[in-house]
Amino acid sequence: MAGSNYGTDFRITTWGESHGKALGVVIDGCPAGLCLNEEDIQSFLDRRKPGQSKYTTARKEGDEVSILSGVYEGKTTGTPISLIVFNKDQHSKDYSEIASFYRPGHADYTFNEKYGFRDPRGGGRSSGRETIGRVAAGAIASKILKEIGISILTYTASIGDILIDPDRFDEGFINENPLYMPDKEASVKASEYLDTLRSLGDSSGGTIECLVKGMPAGIGETVFDKLDAELAKAIMSIGAVKAVEIGDGIKVSCAKGSTNNDEFTLDETGKIIKRTNHSGGVLGGMSDGDTLILRAHFKPTPSISSQQKTVNKNNEEIAINIKGRHDPIIVPRAVVVVESMTAITVLDLLMRNMSSKLDNLKKIYSNP
Amino acid sequence: MAGSNYGTDFRITTWGESHGKALGVVIDGCPAGLCLNEEDIQSFLDRRKPGQSKYTTARKEGDEVSILSGVYEGKTTGTPISLIVFNKDQHSKDYSEIASFYRPGHADYTFNEKYGFRDPRGGGRSSGRETIGRVAAGAIASKILKEIGISILTYTASIGDILIDPDRFDEGFINENPLYMPDKEASVKASEYLDTLRSLGDSSGGTIECLVKGMPAGIGETVFDKLDAELAKAIMSIGAVKAVEIGDGIKVSCAKGSTNNDEFTLDETGKIIKRTNHSGGVLGGMSDGDTLILRAHFKPTPSISSQQKTVNKNNEEIAINIKGRHDPIIVPRAVVVVESMTAITVLDLLMRNMSSKLDNLKKIYSNP
Amino acid sequence: MAGSNYGTDFRITTWGESHGKALGVVIDGCPAGLCLNEEDIQSFLDRRKPGQSKYTTARKEGDEVSILSGVYEGKTTGTPISLIVFNKDQHSKDYSEIASFYRPGHADYTFNEKYGFRDPRGGGRSSGRETIGRVAAGAIASKILKEIGISILTYTASIGDILIDPDRFDEGFINENPLYMPDKEASVKASEYLDTLRSLGDSSGGTIECLVKGMPAGIGETVFDKLDAELAKAIMSIGAVKAVEIGDGIKVSCAKGSTNNDEFTLDETGKIIKRTNHSGGVLGGMSDGDTLILRAHFKPTPSISSQQKTVNKNNEEIAINIKGRHDPIIVPRAVVVVESMTAITVLDLLMRNMSSKLDNLKKIYSNP
Amino acid sequence: MAGSNYGTDFRITTWGESHGKALGVVIDGCPAGLCLNEEDIQSFLDRRKPGQSKYTTARKEGDEVSILSGVYEGKTTGTPISLIVFNKDQHSKDYSEIASFYRPGHADYTFNEKYGFRDPRGGGRSSGRETIGRVAAGAIASKILKEIGISILTYTASIGDILIDPDRFDEGFINENPLYMPDKEASVKASEYLDTLRSLGDSSGGTIECLVKGMPAGIGETVFDKLDAELAKAIMSIGAVKAVEIGDGIKVSCAKGSTNNDEFTLDETGKIIKRTNHSGGVLGGMSDGDTLILRAHFKPTPSISSQQKTVNKNNEEIAINIKGRHDPIIVPRAVVVVESMTAITVLDLLMRNMSSKLDNLKKIYSNP
Repeated sequence: MAGSNYGTDFRITTWGESHGKALGVVIDGCPAGLCLNEEDIQSFLDRRKPGQSKYTTARKEGDEVSILSGVYEGKTTGTPISLIVFNKDQHSKDYSEIASFYRPGHADYTFNEKYGFRDPRGGGRSSGRETIGRVAAGAIASKILKEIGISILTYTASIGDILIDPDRFDEGFINENPLYMPDKEASVKASEYLDTLRSLGDSSGGTIECLVKGMPAGIGETVFDKLDAELAKAIMSIGAVKAVEIGDGIKVSCAKGSTNNDEFTLDETGKIIKRTNHSGGVLGGMSDGDTLILRAHFKPTPSISSQQKTVNKNNEEIAINIKGRHDPIIVPRAVVVVESMTAITVLDLLMRNMSSKLDNLKKIYSNP
Repeated sequence: MAGSNYGTDFRITTWGESHGKALGVVIDGCPAGLCLNEEDIQSFLDRRKPGQSKYTTARKEGDEVSILSGVYEGKTTGTPISLIVFNKDQHSKDYSEIASFYRPGHADYTFNEKYGFRDPRGGGRSSGRETIGRVAAGAIASKILKEIGISILTYTASIGDILIDPDRFDEGFINENPLYMPDKEASVKASEYLDTLRSLGDSSGGTIECLVKGMPAGIGETVFDKLDAELAKAIMSIGAVKAVEIGDGIKVSCAKGSTNNDEFTLDETGKIIKRTNHSGGVLGGMSDGDTLILRAHFKPTPSISSQQKTVNKNNEEIAINIKGRHDPIIVPRAVVVVESMTAITVLDLLMRNMSSKLDNLKKIYSNP
Repeated sequence: MAGSNYGTDFRITTWGESHGKALGVVIDGCPAGLCLNEEDIQSFLDRRKPGQSKYTTARKEGDEVSILSGVYEGKTTGTPISLIVFNKDQHSKDYSEIASFYRPGHADYTFNEKYGFRDPRGGGRSSGRETIGRVAAGAIASKILKEIGISILTYTASIGDILIDPDRFDEGFINENPLYMPDKEASVKASEYLDTLRSLGDSSGGTIECLVKGMPAGIGETVFDKLDAELAKAIMSIGAVKAVEIGDGIKVSCAKGSTNNDEFTLDETGKIIKRTNHSGGVLGGMSDGDTLILRAHFKPTPSISSQQKTVNKNNEEIAINIKGRHDPIIVPRAVVVVESMTAITVLDLLMRNMSSKLDNLKKIYSNP
Repeated sequence: MAGSNYGTDFRITTWGESHGKALGVVIDGCPAGLCLNEEDIQSFLDRRKPGQSKYTTARKEGDEVSILSGVYEGKTTGTPISLIVFNKDQHSKDYSEIASFYRPGHADYTFNEKYGFRDPRGGGRSSGRETIGRVAAGAIASKILKEIGISILTYTASIGDILIDPDRFDEGFINENPLYMPDKEASVKASEYLDTLRSLGDSSGGTIECLVKGMPAGIGETVFDKLDAELAKAIMSIGAVKAVEIGDGIKVSCAKGSTNNDEFTLDETGKIIKRTNHSGGVLGGMSDGDTLILRAHFKPTPSISSQQKTVNKNNEEIAINIKGRHDPIIVPRAVVVVESMTAITVLDLLMRNMSSKLDNLKKIYSNP
């Protein structure tokens, strides 16, 4: 398996290179009967579109999506949904220079080693444009989750050393700033920091946080395909992510059991809830009914304009300057990617969980 | 899929409850022709065996493994290898009390929600004993990796706030102390810290670090089944892990591109290498030929003897004290689990990578 | 993937060699809440047990099954069910002769070519004893199917040229004769035929027919994982099967559309039914609500006592006589194997179908 | 899993409805370094194109394929290959009538039952046009097989009662007649038979035979994913197939062991071969080095113009006449579909087999 498939019951297959003819995704296993049109998907794609601010590349791609199959009269039919975005920007540029050396921090060298050669046009399959398929599929997964009462909130939690302040958390502000931060003060500081880095030909890392609300308890399989394990894979598979945390994350290694354990209690309706949420909504690999919390750490954009040393295909050491405009940070455009991968993963595990009890089989197959 | 399978080409299926008759694993896809006997596997299992020190539970299980299939005259045959460890400790205790409430930090509540009820004996399938199958399979994966020049080093990197000091790193000391730390001074401090916690009926978290040396470049699939993504899943699927880092990990979110990028250069033999290893041996989801570095953060043992509040099955709030001896820390016994999951994941991706080039097919199927 | 896994949501993994220590199966994904004990499984295994009549091998194995995990207080817990049957018959015989040549009609040569060598003890993994795991799992699948109103009837439909006569079909007689034929007259003739073959050191082929009653309509996935496609794989994967038919099977190639099409009509309750069942209960790869009909053609037992020519490992042509008692026909003992593989396949597709409609997700996850 | 994926290492995902915007396939896992252009694929698609003779529908679709990804400078890159064929024929016809009833022999009823409703345009996903993706992928698989010395020959073996005569077998004639029969006399008779049926508004079944030459021995996994089992699924998954035979197929149930066993001998070069090929090139589920032989039985085209009875969505019994021109036989256009599914299956199993021996891993990963 070459790894372009993701998910078991809700399974996506993405394809396409940065500067090829088109990119797309096939979604197999989408339940029948969901109202769906291109606008549902476009609104997600627009969140990752470049050219929206000075912190994202100027290339105006449009990235208009078309539904090619699997929808009839505005409803999903249960058959595979094929989504396509044509590339407008496939000018027959000369790629011989970029093909001749290995950019630091990029996949040029590893692609070459794996396949014997590579498609050098715009990073080929290792480009950030590969996420178009993920986001298009994520839009559909999110829409289904909403139908069963689950919603996802995703935002930039830090840029460099600038962290959002929980006391200033303003959900409404997330979509009001190009950095997708829920804290106005932090977003202003981060903008200034990025301006400075850009002027130096440098770039910054950052973190994204994602909250899933409305999860039923008991979702996730019990040994390998745990909810947190599947999420860790989903998020780490996004280019540039180097760490994934669930709940208290790295803090747990310094914690004590007496403070890290979340005690159970009852809410006013008599429902079992936890007093705290150090677990981030996952116990034993299954959702515990509380808000699911995950965090992804992204490395700085590897394409920087300041000079770097590297090696070319003739095994000579050279110095390079990467031309073109590049985002000084990956994080803002990746917010919707994290949300999409989370939505796909959660939906897939919900679907997989349907046969966990014999009673559920009876519920579906009994004649009313 | 209920999630007790792991791996694609080297695929393991684990089974067994903590206090059931036995636990085991079936390994499907192990290449034929590997010399293998029970001692190879036992030596791995002994590293996770309880009762080795005062920091691990006193229960003496022995955990003796038997090979039931897949090996003939000391060599693997290519057919499934079934490994079994019988439980010595299945006294018909009364589990009615433990079955009646939900322990904080444990999977009691989530198991109940998923399946409608649960096996309360010793945590059932969510017990740490579930890792026996992982470790038994990991022993085999590690042995194959050695045959192609790949070795793995795993150790405790921190306990609570006590970190190992790179300047005092002593590989030989890892197996000389019950905490598996490569730093004598840190291990002494950590021992004292754990003694204190134990006397308070409390527990500690910690981190494990794992290094894979000798990786060929280009291993890992290019979009979803990336080397780091598969490792993130493998490690996060171990009970109690709440964060996974690759290379510089969480530090990358504060880093700049100019310092985070690893420049390429040539070694004395003219081979392409990186000057630094911030990437932790992974670029674009594929191995870059450098040492693979990963870190796992473990939460404190949730079973603590000090009093906790919770809810019982009659929906009443109660206070509980968890009886019995419990490890004040999970980390030392999990070192070999992290190593095993890493070995299985790396081997599986090596096997999956064999068909990446048409030339490889010709190499295997051409008549000499 | 080495092919010892079968099924997606209800997934079995079998292991074990004919003369190894034991054989077994792990069932992952069995829904929680099914009442299950060893007798449920033993009754299926007894149907494939040798030594029941003069047409089956005399070896008395007992084949007693133990449940090692996944069941608590008589109910399945949702975790993997591990079943084991120890081999009583592992005398340390000398296998050097049988290892030295390739028996015609057996997998000796192909195992050698695939893996470089083979386990020669009793056919190793290619022995009919490999089906123990399938049948043990089939017993569980059948029990679940019964809970949702689906039952399976399987029997011997022909031995050599002797076919059962539909006019003499006697369901009650199936378990009254060692050949599992539903026609007394045919069973008498077949017995005589087999007696003659046995005296000549020869063997016979035959066919097995399987009927699944009570199928809901719409089960089976729509392109590759069709109900009939999955059944074809399941049945063809049983050793010695060389053809699989659904409904009218091979007759359809001589048929005309006007007679092969099954017209729809209404039954007395107003339910849509077909007037005929040429389709064998499958239309477009999905169940059509009618009885599912399949037939498997088995080749004659390849182990015959009359002399055969072959080649040995020194590449010399030799003549051999295969010693020992062998069944003159495979079919009777395979009846329960066909039933088991059918049950597993149908159950797996029922479980996979649960997420086909958005309404089903709402049914499972809505709060009542 | 919704079943639009096929294959493990060479994995295809097809999508598209008969009268939707387009149909296509994504091929994941195609080895890098294969020379590939659109003409390679078009030549396969042209073999299934309608309108080539009076026995196939008149609709002129063109079915021109485009490669959207995975190929750079004429060579496969190892990344997913996306192939698309746009539908020219999506006139906004009124489908309300056809949507109102269930055609006998079609998947109308079963689609409705599975998903709650269906796309009625031209059969939607159950149309024969669904095979476009299979054939496009099959063209690539066939090209790779050729590179390692494996070739496939496929033809019509019978139409109604008219069988090809082995004594008149003329390979060169296969592509010289619109029925793809390798026997001129049979093709003339079959043409006359089909003319008669057409004039009566009726249709015929038939069989396709497929031979794979040059197979290395030992390909196929040993229990469930046997070579013959995977082929049975692959072929049975093609719409209208009701039986699959390997080698002597259904004849084995009447055969004796003494004549059905293929004895081993040596050829002039000292290589082990079989004297006969009753096995059809498969022993114990693995290739035995001989020609692989399979046969598929296709039912008659269910769309016939003569009157049929059925039921409509208001649960009323009605009589219908299916309008439009329809092929009086499915077989000729399915020849290339059988060849494609065989090629994909064989290639996938070759790729999966690469890790069967430890020596193979050493061959690929050793430094030369």
